[in-house]
Amino acid sequence: MNEIVGLLYDLFVIFLAAKVAAEVFERLQQPPVIGELLAGALIGPHALGFIGKPDPGLIALFGGDVAAAEEAVKAIYHLVAELGVIVLLFFVGLETRVADILRVGGRATLVAVLGVIAPFVLGFGLVGPLLGHSQIEAVFVGAAMVATSVGITARVLRDLGVIASVESRIILGAAVIDDILAMIILAIVAGLATTGSVSVLHVGAIAVQAVLFTVFVVLIGSGVVRRFGLRLNALRMDNAPFAVALLTMLGLAALSASIGLAAIIGAFLAGMVFAEANERFELEQQALPIYQFLVPFFFVITGSQVNWRLFLDGGILGLALAITGLALLTKLVGCGAAMLGYRWRSVAIVGVGMAPRGEVGLIVASLGLALGAIPSEVFGVVVIMSILTTLVVPPVLRWLYARDPECAISEEDRASPAGLLPEL
Amino acid sequence: MNEIVGLLYDLFVIFLAAKVAAEVFERLQQPPVIGELLAGALIGPHALGFIGKPDPGLIALFGGDVAAAEEAVKAIYHLVAELGVIVLLFFVGLETRVADILRVGGRATLVAVLGVIAPFVLGFGLVGPLLGHSQIEAVFVGAAMVATSVGITARVLRDLGVIASVESRIILGAAVIDDILAMIILAIVAGLATTGSVSVLHVGAIAVQAVLFTVFVVLIGSGVVRRFGLRLNALRMDNAPFAVALLTMLGLAALSASIGLAAIIGAFLAGMVFAEANERFELEQQALPIYQFLVPFFFVITGSQVNWRLFLDGGILGLALAITGLALLTKLVGCGAAMLGYRWRSVAIVGVGMAPRGEVGLIVASLGLALGAIPSEVFGVVVIMSILTTLVVPPVLRWLYARDPECAISEEDRASPAGLLPEL
Repeated sequence: MNEIVGLLYDLFVIFLAAKVAAEVFERLQQPPVIGELLAGALIGPHALGFIGKPDPGLIALFGGDVAAAEEAVKAIYHLVAELGVIVLLFFVGLETRVADILRVGGRATLVAVLGVIAPFVLGFGLVGPLLGHSQIEAVFVGAAMVATSVGITARVLRDLGVIASVESRIILGAAVIDDILAMIILAIVAGLATTGSVSVLHVGAIAVQAVLFTVFVVLIGSGVVRRFGLRLNALRMDNAPFAVALLTMLGLAALSASIGLAAIIGAFLAGMVFAEANERFELEQQALPIYQFLVPFFFVITGSQVNWRLFLDGGILGLALAITGLALLTKLVGCGAAMLGYRWRSVAIVGVGMAPRGEVGLIVASLGLALGAIPSEVFGVVVIMSILTTLVVPPVLRWLYARDPECAISEEDRASPAGLLPEL
Repeated sequence: MNEIVGLLYDLFVIFLAAKVAAEVFERLQQPPVIGELLAGALIGPHALGFIGKPDPGLIALFGGDVAAAEEAVKAIYHLVAELGVIVLLFFVGLETRVADILRVGGRATLVAVLGVIAPFVLGFGLVGPLLGHSQIEAVFVGAAMVATSVGITARVLRDLGVIASVESRIILGAAVIDDILAMIILAIVAGLATTGSVSVLHVGAIAVQAVLFTVFVVLIGSGVVRRFGLRLNALRMDNAPFAVALLTMLGLAALSASIGLAAIIGAFLAGMVFAEANERFELEQQALPIYQFLVPFFFVITGSQVNWRLFLDGGILGLALAITGLALLTKLVGCGAAMLGYRWRSVAIVGVGMAPRGEVGLIVASLGLALGAIPSEVFGVVVIMSILTTLVVPPVLRWLYARDPECAISEEDRASPAGLLPEL
């Protein structure tokens, strides 16, 4: 019992910080998710240090090895945060029918492809020659600029009540394809850094596996749910449809992660597969309390990883700001170009919505650091870029939607009880 | 990302095992909770070993130290299970008004006191003299026989739809007092084992702290909710009443654990405090999906700790069966005697409902083992006693209620959609 008292206390402090921040930011008419990220940055180990310290009971489990206990706490936070973002994307998936995504499939693919090419080419092309870094460093910076962390955007779009808009559907579809492309680029980059060459067979196998997984789940899975979903009520277990949906969420998240995709891609696909059965079994209504309990942990814990000290180093900060600007600009231009033909607001919303790099950029940079391909200051640059692209997106997206008369959300709608479930 | 793929897979396997077992046991007309416990025992590290193995990514986090990674996995399971049982008792608390518990307060106190005295005195009195163990060993066996693990009983009573019955309320009230008494006995026993004497001041301080915590939360907390609960809607954050209830659950669970009580006692009190606001804010309805997601983890993970090999040692098994019989008999007699005046079925339900020792007995035994006060075979005896008292209770409780015409639960009630929420 003793060893988890500290962890329970941490979970309480994280949830408390999330709720206080959400309240303050709602009152300031700012996106609560920004409040949760900043609250995490404030209480995290790099600032006030309210969370993340293993207690004596936990340290005793590791025979007094404080470093091991700290790693354990990190792994636990990671898992809790991951469960939060898995539930978030599962929930968003429940609100997204396969047909709605397929209808914007061509456009989403274009957004994903251009949104990957533009940052990579410009990141790679400018960082090396202009800033005097080695080619392998430039490759890693380019790769870290590619990936989109769709959790932030999905949360903001849901908070704004516009998750069913055409822009949201394009962003969600593009995020799935983007993750597959990012994984392929990561495989190429990792190959370059370790062996100096790229195994076409290896990269091809990874790509085929990811595409097959996605296509199989989307087409076969939704067909199975459409055909056999009604029979779920024949199961005797308590509330079988919801239990099977949650089971699918966990299963596809684990499977997706085990083939190298993000776990949230599997969770999103699981939600989408069950979107057909959503209304009949009130899946979304039942998933909402789990969302409200677990999702804040993702944002506060993500925020708690912000290392403020990085911002104090002038040399790193200058380069980081330049790279951040480039990261935002290239997604805006790449994804925006893919949206030509839409109103300028839709172009801007998709361009901005695809911009957060979040933890995905960090994974690439961590790999580069671990392989010795990039020095720690370049790692710091990527960390700052990931933080800033993540923090800047929610207010801009909110501003873009608030300026749009068709999508304006009145404060009354949000405050009413029905506003809690705007999509039901 | 890589380091938690294995953990995600474990969570999936645990949830899958829980749901398959629940389905099978529902069809066999047996309590699903027994299915979940046995499923855990089957897939756990002591049997098939489907869960609990850290994957290479996690091991790498600990610099290749497999033992440390295994400890981390155990700590993670422990936390996930604890969250499950916290949500379970919070939910049960939401269904329990303070006034309902106070109305049976005298009887619940008597049940708790006699239910602690009988096992301790007989455990201590018989184990030492009759079986030739030392006095300190007998003290630890007696102490391990004292504590009630109310999670199992609460789950069975809820599954049967009788959580509001007078027997259930007596059991819940008695469980809170039982936990305080068990904690006091643990403090005394630990004192005897470490210094050979008991500090009356220390034990008194612990007791006063626990009693003050409970009384303060119950009386002041429910008063605050009754008085200010309505104003929760004035908060701007999304679904504030539910968020504040969850926050209170986490906070009181952590506080309760940090003063040496079980975390679930705090969670139960938190639920009970919000029972007044339950209907208005639909708290129970919202907590139910979280219950359905997290509670199965507690039972499967608890089951996974069953070490079958202990049952193969004839010497240990014989003693363990004797101690198990004594543990069941003493609770039945002690708690039953406190119920004199009620119908025999009520007497039996309370006596049986207070019998599961679950993890609480294990904590006492682990402490004894760690302090060198008991040898490993006595530890094994207590482990078997904890397992058997836990496994035997659900079917007996179900049988007792099924025999009771006033409380009989028809299969139709359970299968109907409304049966999912029998108490709303």
